[in-house]
Amino acid sequence: MTAENPLTKGSTHPALPDDGAPRLYSNRYCPYAQRAHLTLNAKKVPHHVVYIDLVNKPEWLVDVSPLLKVPALHLVGEKSKPSLIESLIIVEYLDEKYPQNPLLSKDPLKRAQDKILVERFNAAGGALMKIALQGGDGSDLWPVLDIFEEELAKRGTPYFGGEKPGFLDYMIWPWFERLPVVEYFLKERYSFNKERYAKLTAWVDLIVKDEVVQSHYATPEQHLTYWKSRKAGQTNYDLLA
Amino acid sequence: MTAENPLTKGSTHPALPDDGAPRLYSNRYCPYAQRAHLTLNAKKVPHHVVYIDLVNKPEWLVDVSPLLKVPALHLVGEKSKPSLIESLIIVEYLDEKYPQNPLLSKDPLKRAQDKILVERFNAAGGALMKIALQGGDGSDLWPVLDIFEEELAKRGTPYFGGEKPGFLDYMIWPWFERLPVVEYFLKERYSFNKERYAKLTAWVDLIVKDEVVQSHYATPEQHLTYWKSRKAGQTNYDLLA
Repeated sequence: MTAENPLTKGSTHPALPDDGAPRLYSNRYCPYAQRAHLTLNAKKVPHHVVYIDLVNKPEWLVDVSPLLKVPALHLVGEKSKPSLIESLIIVEYLDEKYPQNPLLSKDPLKRAQDKILVERFNAAGGALMKIALQGGDGSDLWPVLDIFEEELAKRGTPYFGGEKPGFLDYMIWPWFERLPVVEYFLKERYSFNKERYAKLTAWVDLIVKDEVVQSHYATPEQHLTYWKSRKAGQTNYDLLA
Repeated sequence: MTAENPLTKGSTHPALPDDGAPRLYSNRYCPYAQRAHLTLNAKKVPHHVVYIDLVNKPEWLVDVSPLLKVPALHLVGEKSKPSLIESLIIVEYLDEKYPQNPLLSKDPLKRAQDKILVERFNAAGGALMKIALQGGDGSDLWPVLDIFEEELAKRGTPYFGGEKPGFLDYMIWPWFERLPVVEYFLKERYSFNKERYAKLTAWVDLIVKDEVVQSHYATPEQHLTYWKSRKAGQTNYDLLA
């Protein structure tokens, strides 16, 4: 694995790795890319990383990601060296291709139910953006988290995945890692507390220590510095590279 | 299978079927719901259908579809009788649960590539809405179709799925069935022709005769009547019920 400085407009597309290991195009602050990192690390898949400056994107990005988004996973060991895009498609591909430490259940119904919850969590991602960039008051965030508080209570296990983190845990974690950003912008309107979210706060305290989560973790201060720079129109991606 | 008149605001939630067969909540003109119909029919899964009036939604819809969308698949034969939402999640669930006539490839890479193409096709759905309802000029539709023309050429088979229709064929077909609506609204700006789309026009001519496609088909006239009524603010869902 190589963490490089984010590549920007005018850069050259780095030569493909010659060991056949997939290469992830990522951005250090993108929660969707984080899903791919967590999955690669959870499954201990050897891989390379190229970080991208999403404000001034490299011209060559289109060759590996037609919609110019991250994450993109370049399968340099496959014939014709295809690239995959869309975080959930990449994660499912990795889970199917590399059977070790399976993240999704083998049961079609449980798989479907976890995927539906990930879809429903999307609204939380939108709410975070609104809070950080547009002065949103967070009223659209808490009802989403209520769904997950209730779900964790229903499952009766420390993680959504059971006794250890699974698909749903890793797919939603990136936004929980950014809750301190929400707290900073919402101030006294911040409502993530033990009274309303007893199960979720216990889950956060537990999963933050998980070695996979720690393998691609940024501190509250790092996230906050990033979001403040972004709001000021001077996005600083270099903090963690 | 029962095709009922679309249920509307004030209606009673029909009693659950007692044969354990899943029940699909659908709308006769919803292309996303059509994906679920095509999959159920392709796999010959016995099921029930309840059509929903999406303009005046039944109050009880929230009990089976928390975001009030169709399709929703009510698994009345499963313990706790869960409902699934999101067309692609429903389709994948059905493909995993009912192995007959598999739609997705068993190869993780091919599965991922087909799912990415379905994601990329989403822009065509948005373009259709803009053309029919907001006077869009179609300039955002044709580049999407170019991707699929090229893909079909690359695959060198009559269908995206090979010698018979598969996942990608059935997932994108509903919007091709509505091309006559695009033609009506765009008039001389309509550009779906044999010159630009040789492979896709051959594909349309072939797949429209497929028995699964015919099992849940509406004619150009029916689609057009629906979209005209919708544009006029008097959506008429009853045409096909």
